[in-house]
Amino acid sequence: FMTDNVLGDNIGFVRLVSSMGDDLNIVNAARVSYGKSSEEFGDKDRRLVTYLLKNSHTSPLEHVMFTFNVKVPLFIERQWQRHRTWAFFSLNEVSRRYTSENIEFYIPDKFRIQSTDNKQMSTDELLNEHYTAVIKQTIREQCESALEVYNLMLHVGVAREIARGILPQFMYTNFYASVDLHNLLWFLELRRHPHSQKEIQLYAESIERIIEKIVPNTYSIWSSLMEEKYK
Amino acid sequence: FMTDNVLGDNIGFVRLVSSMGDDLNIVNAARVSYGKSSEEFGDKDRRLVTYLLKNSHTSPLEHVMFTFNVKVPLFIERQWQRHRTWAFFSLNEVSRRYTSENIEFYIPDKFRIQSTDNKQMSTDELLNEHYTAVIKQTIREQCESALEVYNLMLHVGVAREIARGILPQFMYTNFYASVDLHNLLWFLELRRHPHSQKEIQLYAESIERIIEKIVPNTYSIWSSLMEEKYK
Amino acid sequence: FMTDNVLGDNIGFVRLVSSMGDDLNIVNAARVSYGKSSEEFGDKDRRLVTYLLKNSHTSPLEHVMFTFNVKVPLFIERQWQRHRTWAFFSLNEVSRRYTSENIEFYIPDKFRIQSTDNKQMSTDELLNEHYTAVIKQTIREQCESALEVYNLMLHVGVAREIARGILPQFMYTNFYASVDLHNLLWFLELRRHPHSQKEIQLYAESIERIIEKIVPNTYSIWSSLMEEKYK
Amino acid sequence: FMTDNVLGDNIGFVRLVSSMGDDLNIVNAARVSYGKSSEEFGDKDRRLVTYLLKNSHTSPLEHVMFTFNVKVPLFIERQWQRHRTWAFFSLNEVSRRYTSENIEFYIPDKFRIQSTDNKQMSTDELLNEHYTAVIKQTIREQCESALEVYNLMLHVGVAREIARGILPQFMYTNFYASVDLHNLLWFLELRRHPHSQKEIQLYAESIERIIEKIVPNTYSIWSSLMEEKYK
Repeated sequence: FMTDNVLGDNIGFVRLVSSMGDDLNIVNAARVSYGKSSEEFGDKDRRLVTYLLKNSHTSPLEHVMFTFNVKVPLFIERQWQRHRTWAFFSLNEVSRRYTSENIEFYIPDKFRIQSTDNKQMSTDELLNEHYTAVIKQTIREQCESALEVYNLMLHVGVAREIARGILPQFMYTNFYASVDLHNLLWFLELRRHPHSQKEIQLYAESIERIIEKIVPNTYSIWSSLMEEKYK
Repeated sequence: FMTDNVLGDNIGFVRLVSSMGDDLNIVNAARVSYGKSSEEFGDKDRRLVTYLLKNSHTSPLEHVMFTFNVKVPLFIERQWQRHRTWAFFSLNEVSRRYTSENIEFYIPDKFRIQSTDNKQMSTDELLNEHYTAVIKQTIREQCESALEVYNLMLHVGVAREIARGILPQFMYTNFYASVDLHNLLWFLELRRHPHSQKEIQLYAESIERIIEKIVPNTYSIWSSLMEEKYK
Repeated sequence: FMTDNVLGDNIGFVRLVSSMGDDLNIVNAARVSYGKSSEEFGDKDRRLVTYLLKNSHTSPLEHVMFTFNVKVPLFIERQWQRHRTWAFFSLNEVSRRYTSENIEFYIPDKFRIQSTDNKQMSTDELLNEHYTAVIKQTIREQCESALEVYNLMLHVGVAREIARGILPQFMYTNFYASVDLHNLLWFLELRRHPHSQKEIQLYAESIERIIEKIVPNTYSIWSSLMEEKYK
Repeated sequence: FMTDNVLGDNIGFVRLVSSMGDDLNIVNAARVSYGKSSEEFGDKDRRLVTYLLKNSHTSPLEHVMFTFNVKVPLFIERQWQRHRTWAFFSLNEVSRRYTSENIEFYIPDKFRIQSTDNKQMSTDELLNEHYTAVIKQTIREQCESALEVYNLMLHVGVAREIARGILPQFMYTNFYASVDLHNLLWFLELRRHPHSQKEIQLYAESIERIIEKIVPNTYSIWSSLMEEKYK
């Protein structure tokens, strides 16, 4: 029921498939040894979660789990899959070896300019309108041409598992990914780093909007701590 | 000092960066509680390692570690990175956001034919000579054209982190990957499965040739068990 | 709502705290790339799960998660915590440093005899009635005496975190443990090994009875495969 | 070659079994994409490692590995094994089911007083001399009595795997543990937290003295960052 149009092209998305646990599970787990449990999240619970987050007592957070269905361009998926604490299940990895339908590409609508200070980064400045139009058209044609070569290979009989090598990294991929709340918050924290690529930041923001509905109190406490830490 | 020309194009390779532990470490760890230790790997040790491998008593293997430097096409790297027990450090992921030099592509020399029985697999049959020549030339041109679009984008100022999206998955990537012997053997076992893609099987075989020099006895016992299991 | 009296003393238990996903999630995840999904678990689904389990295609199982609350004697907990794919949250570890109430011990009702063939194992043979009564009484007195020393230390002011060192490993401990279905099945398989200690086997059987209610089809397929493999 | 008498009783120790990688490996891995490599660790390298540690760019640290042999009382081992990023191989877990020799206990020489403010903690204040002597003698007798019950059980035939339940948590255990430098530094940071138990802090300090000899530069940079962070 929860989806999100992430990159503005109505293709990429983040969707919550399932989740386990909530704010009360966290504080009740942390307190179970006293035989006390909260029925409503109150001020004491807020202080406890703040303490847990500030002091890296993250075990109670590891029992809250999420499974997301994510559709991203391949060059972003590669960064995501670096995070080994997520369990991935790539849907397209399977399907791409089965079918050749529904291949889609991400065509950026705006282009950030290369930073000259920091060779690794982009800036907030955008390419001017004229060049933007030219580059978008060029990308579109290059992707179409790659798809034609791919289809030609399939036509003469080349195995799909080889032919796919010609498809550009703008290609969309679709995966399931499960992660516990502790490791998810760490992922989201790294994504707030200014050196992080803008596109993956947009996915992180979509995830934040989703988990805010599942663990509203823990999310709001974490979010305040982050603003304090990185202001 | 150990390298390997994997895909026959003198570009892709597997290189052992460093390793920790050997055959004797494994048996001595498994026996340390008796206060006995082997100085030379003998028949008793062979029986012990056979027992450990057959009965999934894999802890002693987890203290033998390897770091490899691997250069593979991106469409193979994606499969590799599914294995979360490896610690990856992608060299190109960094450099691709820094520099635009040294972009290389894998141009297959032969093409396996798509299986018609099993939609996921390739067969051992190869594309005929005429088509092979045509497809190789087409791939080469498509990769060059992608590189031109990439360089055009850089030229007008587009950030490298976006521009790279146009590069095809035949592009070579270069990473460090660390893994313990237990998880490495599991990776190698999965790669021996007939449904596994040929290109990643070739990398697995290179790794087998390397570890055979580091843990010759454990490797030879494991290898015999595999032949028995999958004959 | 699910509990289990594991060791026959009405103290130890396994309780399902929460779970995420079911049989249909597994097959729908594995098939999502076709745009087909099952609404009821049928013969096709049974064949798919059999295929996934037999061929170690375990990713779809990793998105089904369980959190258990487990109460076990400490000498069993130590074996459990070897399994690093479980996320543990030890309730007593916290509480033991806070409170000195509710310390309970496991007093075995029967005693298995030491194997003379295999020095690591127990046999199915039981200690005779006379000795059993004597040993039970001795254990009970020794545990009580340990508790008295513990309370004496607290009385003179010794920190709880040190004093607890005197308590025997028959002491019950209480933890939360989360695990995905793939790693849970691997844990359960290892526990079926005849060399596995009887007490932890009993906990594994309790867990089997619980997950049978959550993923009845996957469990029954796995269970048949295990009987075939280890008959 | 590296050992350490941790708890002052000449029983507990930390010993480096093997290691992989050093300071230069870290900076050269982080820089390999430029084709530049350092032969001696200089100012530039110091700045790079500082940057990596401050910005959680920890991948290059994950390829430096250590295997330690550790002998600790069981009540400390339990806390250690919470850290799932370590690969453990418990030597005594095996041997205790095999042999009944060489059972040793930790008898504290001094006793920290329970904190009255924070119920979880001990204070720096020590028990007076008189009580210390009484408590030490009581612990010694209680451990001896536990050992007698254990031996009695073995004598009448009870399986070792059950009998060991009577042994107190002051019992020493001996394990191998492997970890990469990134996760080791995180372990060491948590151990510097004032709420961490004194005994495990002493083991952490022994480990610090050992790794200082293997990665002196990285260690000294990390150590300064820690002092800054927690001053």
